[in-house]
Amino acid sequence: MNFCGKTIPTRANAKYDPEDLHRCHLHSGHAGRCQEYPYLDHLAGVAPKVKNKVVRDATKTTGAAWKSDDAGPNRISRWVMMLDDEELLALGIDMSKLKPGIVAKLREKSASYDDCMASAKYLTYLVYGMANAPIPDQYTRQYLEALFGPINAGTTSCLICKSQLDFADFSEARRGRAEIETAHAQPRLHTPGNVGFAHRDCNIAQGDKTLPEFYEWIAGILERRRHSGG
Amino acid sequence: MNFCGKTIPTRANAKYDPEDLHRCHLHSGHAGRCQEYPYLDHLAGVAPKVKNKVVRDATKTTGAAWKSDDAGPNRISRWVMMLDDEELLALGIDMSKLKPGIVAKLREKSASYDDCMASAKYLTYLVYGMANAPIPDQYTRQYLEALFGPINAGTTSCLICKSQLDFADFSEARRGRAEIETAHAQPRLHTPGNVGFAHRDCNIAQGDKTLPEFYEWIAGILERRRHSGG
Repeated sequence: MNFCGKTIPTRANAKYDPEDLHRCHLHSGHAGRCQEYPYLDHLAGVAPKVKNKVVRDATKTTGAAWKSDDAGPNRISRWVMMLDDEELLALGIDMSKLKPGIVAKLREKSASYDDCMASAKYLTYLVYGMANAPIPDQYTRQYLEALFGPINAGTTSCLICKSQLDFADFSEARRGRAEIETAHAQPRLHTPGNVGFAHRDCNIAQGDKTLPEFYEWIAGILERRRHSGG
Repeated sequence: MNFCGKTIPTRANAKYDPEDLHRCHLHSGHAGRCQEYPYLDHLAGVAPKVKNKVVRDATKTTGAAWKSDDAGPNRISRWVMMLDDEELLALGIDMSKLKPGIVAKLREKSASYDDCMASAKYLTYLVYGMANAPIPDQYTRQYLEALFGPINAGTTSCLICKSQLDFADFSEARRGRAEIETAHAQPRLHTPGNVGFAHRDCNIAQGDKTLPEFYEWIAGILERRRHSGG
């Protein structure tokens, strides 16, 4: 399956993006005008907040959910964070003025435009695989199934704790945050297969460990606890 | 062993405290002037930051380490948070103006003055039990051992992961935070036995779960992971 790939003019709100970055992700030879996220049209109609979350989590440096108010300076496109300090300064982003912890977080979330687009598609696929998810229209189903295989509601699990995710958890906020977040098996790798959805608690517990490191760590905790009788 | 218990005049920086709250914790019939934390004099000399951390963690509503700069409005004595909203308003603290999440955090950390003092003693005892901890002077050793039993360096473990804690980890900051934090087996119970030191990562992973809930949760994760082959 080939995509159109024509350049889509950068919108005003993506002010750090190179002129010719955004591409059409309709299939080649499509009718009508070019679109960057055609497979998200259906979700935009039935669950616009979830659609916005997919785009934001796939393309922005913050994993913060839509109700978070401390996202701060990190709502920047992931691909912008692939530029070096000098290039960023030319764009008006002075990394030397940010705290080392913020810089590390921003840099950790850097990813190419192509990886972000592939992640957006995969996250959308995972959304439709959640229990109680809306049923995709025919166009969306075909688009996503051609990339990732059959869509079956009830098959998407938390990337970390492996229990089933429910679409309703997107809207169950706690302390002002959504219950479902985007997570990464390898924190620095933003690609389909490595990216997924997770419970907020699970994502926090994983921290900056890789998933294998996390499992080894908690297995060690349970092991030591058995021996300590604690 | 009885303590003196005489009132110590409230210092200017404890502006929300009742007049006669602070007590002398020297043994009864002591010579010289009254002292609230006599068992912390030795640590104040050899590791003043750790001494300050023990007092702050034992008595303040925040668990934030000394380098944190977002402690915000929650550096308030734990016992003040036992007052109801009306009493707090009379002291100039308007709880209705704080976000629900902040209020919940503050209230969760409320504890009586006596529980805070007992926790401070127990935390000090745990400090001397860490690997590579300073050796307490005779007065401090006798004071703490009479309360909690023998002090042996290398016996204090992380409350959560049960691995040995090293005194040096107090100063190993990461992203501006100390590596060792105060933690609670039951988040709402601030007493010796329930309070302890933990690695920052462990404390974050535990979140607002009790320790038994946390262990059950991570055991479930490992169990599901085995079955998912993930």
